[in-house]
Amino acid sequence: MDRPATEELPPGLTASEQITPEELQLAARNHGMPLEALRWPVTPVGLHYLLIHYDVPVVDPAWWRLELGGRVSRARSFTLDELRARPAVTRPVTMECAGNGRARLSPRAVSQPWLLEAVGTAEWTGTPLWPLLEEAGVADDAAEVVFSGLDRGVEGGIEQRYERSLPLAEARRADVLLAWAVNGQPLPPQHGFPLRLLVPGWYGMTSVKWLSRVTVSAEPFLGYQQVRAYRYRRVADDDGEPVTRIVPRSLMAPPGIPDFLTRRRFLAPGPCRLEGRAWSGWGPVVRVEVSVDGGHAWDAAELAAPPAPHAWQAWSYRWEAAPGDYELCCRAADATGREQPAEPPWNLGGYAGNHPHRVQVTVRSPAGP
Amino acid sequence: MDRPATEELPPGLTASEQITPEELQLAARNHGMPLEALRWPVTPVGLHYLLIHYDVPVVDPAWWRLELGGRVSRARSFTLDELRARPAVTRPVTMECAGNGRARLSPRAVSQPWLLEAVGTAEWTGTPLWPLLEEAGVADDAAEVVFSGLDRGVEGGIEQRYERSLPLAEARRADVLLAWAVNGQPLPPQHGFPLRLLVPGWYGMTSVKWLSRVTVSAEPFLGYQQVRAYRYRRVADDDGEPVTRIVPRSLMAPPGIPDFLTRRRFLAPGPCRLEGRAWSGWGPVVRVEVSVDGGHAWDAAELAAPPAPHAWQAWSYRWEAAPGDYELCCRAADATGREQPAEPPWNLGGYAGNHPHRVQVTVRSPAGP
Repeated sequence: MDRPATEELPPGLTASEQITPEELQLAARNHGMPLEALRWPVTPVGLHYLLIHYDVPVVDPAWWRLELGGRVSRARSFTLDELRARPAVTRPVTMECAGNGRARLSPRAVSQPWLLEAVGTAEWTGTPLWPLLEEAGVADDAAEVVFSGLDRGVEGGIEQRYERSLPLAEARRADVLLAWAVNGQPLPPQHGFPLRLLVPGWYGMTSVKWLSRVTVSAEPFLGYQQVRAYRYRRVADDDGEPVTRIVPRSLMAPPGIPDFLTRRRFLAPGPCRLEGRAWSGWGPVVRVEVSVDGGHAWDAAELAAPPAPHAWQAWSYRWEAAPGDYELCCRAADATGREQPAEPPWNLGGYAGNHPHRVQVTVRSPAGP
Repeated sequence: MDRPATEELPPGLTASEQITPEELQLAARNHGMPLEALRWPVTPVGLHYLLIHYDVPVVDPAWWRLELGGRVSRARSFTLDELRARPAVTRPVTMECAGNGRARLSPRAVSQPWLLEAVGTAEWTGTPLWPLLEEAGVADDAAEVVFSGLDRGVEGGIEQRYERSLPLAEARRADVLLAWAVNGQPLPPQHGFPLRLLVPGWYGMTSVKWLSRVTVSAEPFLGYQQVRAYRYRRVADDDGEPVTRIVPRSLMAPPGIPDFLTRRRFLAPGPCRLEGRAWSGWGPVVRVEVSVDGGHAWDAAELAAPPAPHAWQAWSYRWEAAPGDYELCCRAADATGREQPAEPPWNLGGYAGNHPHRVQVTVRSPAGP
C-alpha cells in the first residue's frame, strides 16, 4: 500500500493516534449517528449524521428562490410553493459521508475525524430534478449540472460557496430529487432548509444543502469541492479520481450495555441476536458476514427482506455468547462484487475507509466481577 | 488555583492539548450545538446538544409506565396517555451540560470533550411534577426524590441505570416538569422518549431522560451520578460539593464566514452587529460585555427584552470592524452577582468551565488576499 512513510508526512496529514484541537472543533459541531440508532429502519431526525462545511445559513423562505439557468433555453426561478406544487415522491435513502472511517486511517487527513457514525437513513420527499431541466430545455452541448448552496466559507485558502456538479447522465436519473421534507417534516435548518439536492447512492457531499442555483454547463465544473476535495489521490499534485458512489459497509448495533468512557460492551452469557444494517451505492447488498473472533472466521448473517433501492439492508446473526472477551466484526458485499476489504485502500483525503466494523465485547454474568 | 502539577497527574486527567481516542469516541456520538444556531431563539430539534451516557434505549410506549413510589401513601403507575391527560404547560428552557467547556481546561478530565457547544434552548411541554407527588401523599420524612431512567451502562466500574435525585424543595418547584414533547413534537428518542424530567436552571444531568421511576426517599440518594460524578472536587477522595444550577455563560454567534478547518472567521470591514445569547440558572442575566481585543477592554452589549425565566437572554453589540486580526470575547453576569471569571475555578471533573467565549476573526476586504 503506497501510503507515505511516517517520517515524510506531507502537510495536512498526521500519523498520531491523538486528535488535534482543530479536529475536535469539527467533531464538536458535526454530528454522528450513535450506533445504537441502527435499530431504527428510518433514522429519527436529530440522529442522522450531519457534515456542515461552513455555517448553517438562516434562510427566509419568503425571499428564497431556486434559480435554474446556464445552458438551457428558458432560465427561470421557482418559489418553494411552486416546487411543492409539482409531483412529489417520498423515498428512503441511506446517506453516508465520504469521510466516514477517516479517523481510523493512518496516516490520516486532518479534517472531520469520523469514526464510523457518519451515516443515516431518512425518508426524503421532493420532486424529481430531471423534468424541471427538460421543461427548461437543456442545450445539446450540456455536459454537467452544477448545484450551488447558500453556505459560504473559506477552504484550502479559497473563499467559496459550497458547490458540486453531476454528470448529465446522473442528473437524468429518475431518483434524483429536489427535496423539501425529511421524515414527513419540512427540512430542518441543518439538513438544508428550504431545499436540498438528493442523489441516492452517492456520498453525501453530492446532495447539496440550502440549494439556491442549478446551472447546466457545457464545461466540466472546476470548483474546489469538485477538483480539490473529494478525490481519491495518493499525493497532493495528483488529479485523482472523483469520489462518487458509496462503497459497501456494514455496521452493527453494539449488543449489551456500554462502558461510558471506553464504549466496551458488556452482556450476559446466552443466546444473543446481533443485528445491524449494510449498504452500498453500487448495488444491492447480497452478503453480510459476522466474525466473533476479530476477523479470523466469518459466518453468514441472515438478511431481512430487501429494502427499497439505496436504503440500508437489515441483517441479523444468532450468537451463543459464552463468558469471555470478544471482538465482533461485520462486513458486507454487494451485487457488483464489491466487498469490504480487511484494510481500506489508503488515500490522501481519507475517503471511503470501509474497513470492517469491530466491537469490543465482554460476556459475563451480571453478578460477576 | 490548586490544580495538580502536570508531573503528578492522577488517573483520568490529561494535560495534553491533544484529544485521546476515547474522548473522540464520545465526541462522535454526543452532539454539540453548532454556534451559529445561537441565531435561533428556540433551537431546532437536531441542533440542541445531547449528552447520552449509555445508549439511547428503544422504548415501546405500549409497555412503558411511569412508576411513582417510595415514601408516599399511594404508589401508582401512569401510562403516557394518563400523563398527557393532565394539565400541561409549555416552557422555553435553556439547558446546558455540566461538562461544557471541559476540553479547554488544563489539566482536564478524560470524558466527553466539550468545547462550548453543549447547550440549547427548547420549548418543553409536560405536566408539573409536584401535583402528582401531592396526590400520591408524600410522607413526612421525605427528603429527596430519585429519578430513574431506562438507560443502562457501566461507569466507574459500576453497572447502573442512570439515576439522579432532587432535594424535596426543588422537586416542589412549579416549573419542574415531566415532559413528553419538545418544540411541539413528541420527544424524539434521543431526548428521552416517551418522558423526561425537566428541571429548569439546573445543569442537564438533572433532567433525567427515558424516565421510568420516581421514588420519594427519606435518605440522601447515594447513586454513582449523585455522589461520584457531578461533584466539584479537587482530589479524588474529596466528597466535593454537588453540581446544581448553571453558572453564567454567554456565547456569540460567530460573525462572518468560517474557514472549514480552523473555524477562524472572515468578514468584510464596516459595521458589524455581533449577537449572541447568555444565561444563568441562578438568576436573570443583567449584563453582557464584549471585548474586541482579547479581553483587555470590555464594553456593554445591548440586551433584548427579558426572556422567559430560564430561557437565554439575547444580546447584541455594534462593532465597527476595521481591517486586522481580532479576538472577540463575551461574558455575562446575573442578578445574583455571579459573573464569568477570566479563568474558571479548576475542578477534577471539568464542570462549569465558564471562561469567556473567544472568537478569532480576520477583517479584510472580500477582494483582499
